[in-house]
Amino acid sequence: MSDHGGNIYAASRATGIPEEEILDFSASINPMGVPRKAAKALKAAIDRLCHYPEPYSESLSEHLGRLFGLSTESIICGNGSAELIYLLPRALKPACVLIPEPTFSEYERACRIAGTSKKLGYRLRQENNFDVSPEAFAEKIIEACASGGKTHGSAAPPAGPGAMAFLCNPNNPTGRLVARNDVLAIAETARQQGCYLVVDEAFLDFCPGESVLAEVKGNPYLIVVRSVTKFYALSGLRIGYALMHPSVAHQVRPYKEPWTVNALAQKAAIIVTKDVSFQKASLAAMAEEKSFMEGELHKLRIEFVPSRANYYLLRLDRALEVKAALQERGILVRDCSNFVGLGPGFLRIAVRSRRENEILIAEMGRICAPLS
Amino acid sequence: MSDHGGNIYAASRATGIPEEEILDFSASINPMGVPRKAAKALKAAIDRLCHYPEPYSESLSEHLGRLFGLSTESIICGNGSAELIYLLPRALKPACVLIPEPTFSEYERACRIAGTSKKLGYRLRQENNFDVSPEAFAEKIIEACASGGKTHGSAAPPAGPGAMAFLCNPNNPTGRLVARNDVLAIAETARQQGCYLVVDEAFLDFCPGESVLAEVKGNPYLIVVRSVTKFYALSGLRIGYALMHPSVAHQVRPYKEPWTVNALAQKAAIIVTKDVSFQKASLAAMAEEKSFMEGELHKLRIEFVPSRANYYLLRLDRALEVKAALQERGILVRDCSNFVGLGPGFLRIAVRSRRENEILIAEMGRICAPLS
Repeated sequence: MSDHGGNIYAASRATGIPEEEILDFSASINPMGVPRKAAKALKAAIDRLCHYPEPYSESLSEHLGRLFGLSTESIICGNGSAELIYLLPRALKPACVLIPEPTFSEYERACRIAGTSKKLGYRLRQENNFDVSPEAFAEKIIEACASGGKTHGSAAPPAGPGAMAFLCNPNNPTGRLVARNDVLAIAETARQQGCYLVVDEAFLDFCPGESVLAEVKGNPYLIVVRSVTKFYALSGLRIGYALMHPSVAHQVRPYKEPWTVNALAQKAAIIVTKDVSFQKASLAAMAEEKSFMEGELHKLRIEFVPSRANYYLLRLDRALEVKAALQERGILVRDCSNFVGLGPGFLRIAVRSRRENEILIAEMGRICAPLS
Repeated sequence: MSDHGGNIYAASRATGIPEEEILDFSASINPMGVPRKAAKALKAAIDRLCHYPEPYSESLSEHLGRLFGLSTESIICGNGSAELIYLLPRALKPACVLIPEPTFSEYERACRIAGTSKKLGYRLRQENNFDVSPEAFAEKIIEACASGGKTHGSAAPPAGPGAMAFLCNPNNPTGRLVARNDVLAIAETARQQGCYLVVDEAFLDFCPGESVLAEVKGNPYLIVVRSVTKFYALSGLRIGYALMHPSVAHQVRPYKEPWTVNALAQKAAIIVTKDVSFQKASLAAMAEEKSFMEGELHKLRIEFVPSRANYYLLRLDRALEVKAALQERGILVRDCSNFVGLGPGFLRIAVRSRRENEILIAEMGRICAPLS
């Protein structure tokens, strides 16, 4: 099983430090914490947990449809975006999958479990800040379709075999964004070639205006996956959704398991996606903290990848030693050496509150100085 | 998509009656409601939902292992027992599945999605109270293995193709129990034949002493699935677990999706499974209410299947009219005509609190009298 960030429980066991005292920079979660309106509603809803959730999150899908100007049929809600990342290849059965490297590791695992027989990697280069080249990625889509069973863009998409490409935007763990127009150009190639393009916008709330979700209406090969738990700090609750053309949703739904989204997650997602004041405050605070962090990292001469998300990929000598020394002090960061396409020497840190960021920077200064 | 009980949301939309005022006899949930200790802990945990849950519910698995005298490796926790019902055929890939009829409809759907090519039905007869005959069921297992690719009991079970049998105990929707010794005899045949026997004990907490879960230690073909959400009235939260021989768990884990159990569910499950006073009070209250309901149903001359669970299958003329008339009054019951092996004329009712049971009985008396 793959190792991910955010496991404060394992860290607490390893260090003896209580979970509550651990500073978690390994999971990239909005440091504003659980939105107050949602928290209040959830506390009031505990006593009604004896009732099943809606089996397919019907009310939430309707709400999201209205919010995004899409039909309810276009939306499938899941137990975190992870459920949807697993559901899509299971239902659409691509023969070949195209995956940038490095990126979120679950895409590859989901396809492997779903029986996808061929993987094509698209290597992102450190010297280019790990940027996706829209032209090169589109070329790779053509290659994937050639090896996966090309199915030149038909009106009704095929139920496999064919190809599927994943694009995490902004990318995890690099924080690099492919601009909206470039994503749409890639999606157009995908449509022409008959390749599903799954754009994972888990962290895109931090870059307003860059989402391509509304475009699923016009392109049955474009699928957008979103998370409610990063920007809205509800990781413990598990809630995400996928947006796609109704004809594709119609192919995916027969594979969907019932009741996967719990009743509190359904309720919270409706509340937080309407919580404009939380959204504004979060974006403002994040901009300020990112500016602070970049300044401090420069001062410490720690190399980082410029990021559009709420985290930074750091390049460090002796990264594992730094990670271990931080963990001893109750600070978790994400070792990225197990990402395909990254070697040792990379850590990912979330941007958190000023107080926490100051602690991290101070500790990193102390730890890194004698190492360098 | 299959229709199930417990959809108070759809009922509220259909009738205009607020969700809170609906009396839900269609979902078979402990009428004591959310256990108080758990509710208190959950309310306190809301503000920590910014943290991810443990990816594979490690602490809960350890707790359950200690509780049942099984190794942690024997236990896989899921997003309700539904996740496990879908996970098992996906991982173990049976070529043939044996399913009693009528029973919970998700077994068949899970196998169909997993690619199981053959289904063998085992018809339960109304004239026998829909009882499973252990001998006949064991015979059917032999038949399933013959058609699914028989793999005579080896020490290490095969990763398909082979056969899988489901046994819901007590059965949903009939409430009929196969006694522990009979289940073990069936499991022994399954072992000898190399057929996975999945015993779904979702409602078994209402029949203490009848569980076969401890026996997974000695029989790698026996898998027990349990729900925390029926007896502990946490359906909205989604939590279940499966118990199996570690060698089988080792085959299933590579197919398990991460973070499927939310953080509140993990916390609640540990608390409620230790809550002896809730358990005792629930069993006592349920015994009393079942005795009341049976008496009242007799008085109304409504035919019902004697049940060991917290629900009854009723045989009624004009069942759909009765259901509709009850729904108009804000009372939900489960129409069972869509269960394979049941025709029209069957409703399932949960046993609830005395106040609610009295309302149901009074309304049924009023509705059924002019119909008969």
